[in-house]
Amino acid sequence: MVFENIKWIENKSLVTIIDQTQLPIKKVIKEITSIEQMWEAIKMLRVRGAPLIGVSAGYGLLLGLIELNKSNISDFDLYFDKIFESIEYIKTSRPTAVNLFWVADQFKSLTTKIKNDFEISNSDNKCLNIKQTEILKDICYKKFMNLAIKIHNDDKNMCEQIGEHGLELLENGDSILTHCNAGSLATSAWGTALAPIYKAYDKGYDITVYSDETRPLLQGSRLTAYELIDKGIKTYTICDDMAGYVMKLGKISKIIVGADRIALNGDFANKIGTYSVAILAKFHNIPLYVAAPSSTFDFNIESGNDIPIEERGKEEIIHGYGKQTAPENVNIFNPAFDITPANLVTAFITEKGIIKPPFKDKFKNLLS
Amino acid sequence: MVFENIKWIENKSLVTIIDQTQLPIKKVIKEITSIEQMWEAIKMLRVRGAPLIGVSAGYGLLLGLIELNKSNISDFDLYFDKIFESIEYIKTSRPTAVNLFWVADQFKSLTTKIKNDFEISNSDNKCLNIKQTEILKDICYKKFMNLAIKIHNDDKNMCEQIGEHGLELLENGDSILTHCNAGSLATSAWGTALAPIYKAYDKGYDITVYSDETRPLLQGSRLTAYELIDKGIKTYTICDDMAGYVMKLGKISKIIVGADRIALNGDFANKIGTYSVAILAKFHNIPLYVAAPSSTFDFNIESGNDIPIEERGKEEIIHGYGKQTAPENVNIFNPAFDITPANLVTAFITEKGIIKPPFKDKFKNLLS
Repeated sequence: MVFENIKWIENKSLVTIIDQTQLPIKKVIKEITSIEQMWEAIKMLRVRGAPLIGVSAGYGLLLGLIELNKSNISDFDLYFDKIFESIEYIKTSRPTAVNLFWVADQFKSLTTKIKNDFEISNSDNKCLNIKQTEILKDICYKKFMNLAIKIHNDDKNMCEQIGEHGLELLENGDSILTHCNAGSLATSAWGTALAPIYKAYDKGYDITVYSDETRPLLQGSRLTAYELIDKGIKTYTICDDMAGYVMKLGKISKIIVGADRIALNGDFANKIGTYSVAILAKFHNIPLYVAAPSSTFDFNIESGNDIPIEERGKEEIIHGYGKQTAPENVNIFNPAFDITPANLVTAFITEKGIIKPPFKDKFKNLLS
Repeated sequence: MVFENIKWIENKSLVTIIDQTQLPIKKVIKEITSIEQMWEAIKMLRVRGAPLIGVSAGYGLLLGLIELNKSNISDFDLYFDKIFESIEYIKTSRPTAVNLFWVADQFKSLTTKIKNDFEISNSDNKCLNIKQTEILKDICYKKFMNLAIKIHNDDKNMCEQIGEHGLELLENGDSILTHCNAGSLATSAWGTALAPIYKAYDKGYDITVYSDETRPLLQGSRLTAYELIDKGIKTYTICDDMAGYVMKLGKISKIIVGADRIALNGDFANKIGTYSVAILAKFHNIPLYVAAPSSTFDFNIESGNDIPIEERGKEEIIHGYGKQTAPENVNIFNPAFDITPANLVTAFITEKGIIKPPFKDKFKNLLS
C-alpha cells in the first residue's frame, strides 16, 4: 500500500490531488480538470515539494492539450503555438521551482519533435484537413500522456527504490525521528526520508515516528504527521526544542531526514534545524540517515561551504500562524536551510543503494 | 536603569503592573487597586513567573488590608478573620505556584503575630474603641506594607546580585543566546539569566542577544525579546531549531539560561529545550552559564534523575498559534522541562557568587 497524493484518471480526463492547504485539518481531494486549475493549485501551494510540482506540471500540460484538442483549430503552426504558450504559462505558476522548468523543458522538446516529425502533404498553406487534424491531435495526446505518466512513475519508482534500500537499515520496533516533510506529500508517492518507514510498515514492522514540528513553516506537524497517521503509523509530534530530551529518554533508535543538495564530500543542505538534530544524534550515538535521489548530489560542489543558504522574511517567525508572537521591531534571522557536515552522517540512502563513509569515491562510483 | 514591571505607588495606594497578556503586541500598564483585581491579574497570567507571582500576591494582600481598613469594623476577631480570609483567597489565584504559598505563609505568620501582640484593654467583648481601632489598622497597614515591599526588594536585590556576579563573566561585544524567559518579566526586576546582560548593557558594553522563541509557549519571542528591546538591547528572535546553525556561524559567544531546580550534583531542570541548547553549546565550545537564586538549589536531590518532569496537554502543540497546526489525532509528547547534566554546565551564577565545577562541595560552602 502506498500513500499517493496525485492520480491521473484517464477515463475522466482529470487529475486528483490532495489539497495541502487544507492539511492537517481535513483531507480534501480536489479534481483538476484544466491547465488553469493546475496552475492555480501549484501557485496556491495546494501541491508543493519540488518532485510533486514537476509531476503536477506534466499533468497540467496534458490537461491543456486535451482542452486544445477540443477546439476546431486546423492551422498547423497555430496549434503548436498554442502548446508552446501553455508550456510557458505553466512555468509562471512557481517561477523558482527547478523541477517545474525541468518538466517544461521535456515537454518543449517533445513538442518540437512532434512538430518536426509530422508530415503535412500540403506544406504551403499549413491548413490541415480533418483527417490530418485528428491524427495530429491523437499523436500529441498519446505522447503528452505518456510523458506525464512517465515523469510520475519515474518519481514514484525512484522514491520506492529509496524505500527499499532504506528498509535494509531498519528493524522491527524502530522508533524514528524525522525533521520537516520529506514524505509522500513532497513527491508523487512514498517520499524520500519517509519511504523506508512506509516500506517497513508494509512489511509488518512495529514502527513509531517522532516528527519535529519544524518551525517556522511547521511542515513536520502539518504534513509529515498527517501523512504518517493517514497511513496508520504511530506518530508523535514534538516541538523542535524537545528533540534532544526525547533522544536522552531513549525514545529514538534512528533518525532519517531528507536533503536538498549534497556536496561531493558528503556535507548536505536540508531544512533549517537538520544540523541541530545531527549534533544531538551524534551526542546520543543514534544513527543519522539522509535519504535523497541521486539528482540531489551536486558534484560541482566540493563541500557544504559552497552551498548558498536562502534567508527568508520575518513574517514567518513573527506572525507564524495567524497570531503575532514576537515584537514587530525585533531583529529576525530566518535561514531556510542549514548545512550538516558529512562527519555527522551515518549513511546516505539513494535509489541506487546505501552509501557509507568515506563518501567521495563511493558517490562517484555509485551515482555517476 | 532597571526594567521594572511591578511598582507600588504608596501615595495612591495602588500597584502598577505590565499586563503580560498584551505582550508582545503592546505594553499596557495596568493599575491594580484591590485584592480582587490582583487575584484576577495572577489568575489570568497578566503577571507570571514564580518570583513575580509572589511579589504580586504580597501587594494584593496589602490592597486587601487597605480596603478592610476603610470599613468601620470594630470587632477584633472579625477584623483578623477577614485578613486570614484574604490570605486564603489570594492562594486560590494560582493553586500550583509555590511562591504564592510562601508569601501567603509569611503574611499569615505576620498577622498571627500582630494579633497576639496587640493588647486590648477590654478583652472580654473584644469590641475595639475608636482609638484602638485606628491604632490596630495603622499597625497592620504599616507592617503589611513593609512586608510586601521587603519581599519585592529582596527579590530585586537578589536578581541584581545575580546580575553583578554574572557581569564578571561577560565582555564587551558578547553575543548571548538565551532560552525561554528568565528575565525581568518573571521577577520583579532584572530577572536571573537576563540580569548580567542588563548589567553589561548599563555598563556600556555592546551586547547582542539571540532569543530562542521557545515552543510551545513562546516565552522567548513573546517576553524575552520584548523586554530586551524595551531596554534598548539589540535582540534577534530565532526559532528553536535555528540555534545550532547560529552557533555554527559564530554568532554566539556565550549562553545564559535560568533554572527551575538544581540538584546537589549540578544537574538542573529548566524549560524544555535547555538540554538541546546545552549539547549544541558543548559541540561548539561555547560556555553555558546557568543563572539562579540560591533558593533554586535543592540539596535533598542528589541528581537530575530525581527531579520529576511535568507533562502538559496537547493543545499547546496542536493549537499553539491560534490555528490548528497538527492533526487532532496525532500523539503528543509535551514535557514542560528537561534535565541538563552538570557536565554540560560551565558555571552557575547565584546571588552569592559564581560556582564552577566540581560543583557539589562548592554548592554547600557558598550556599548553606
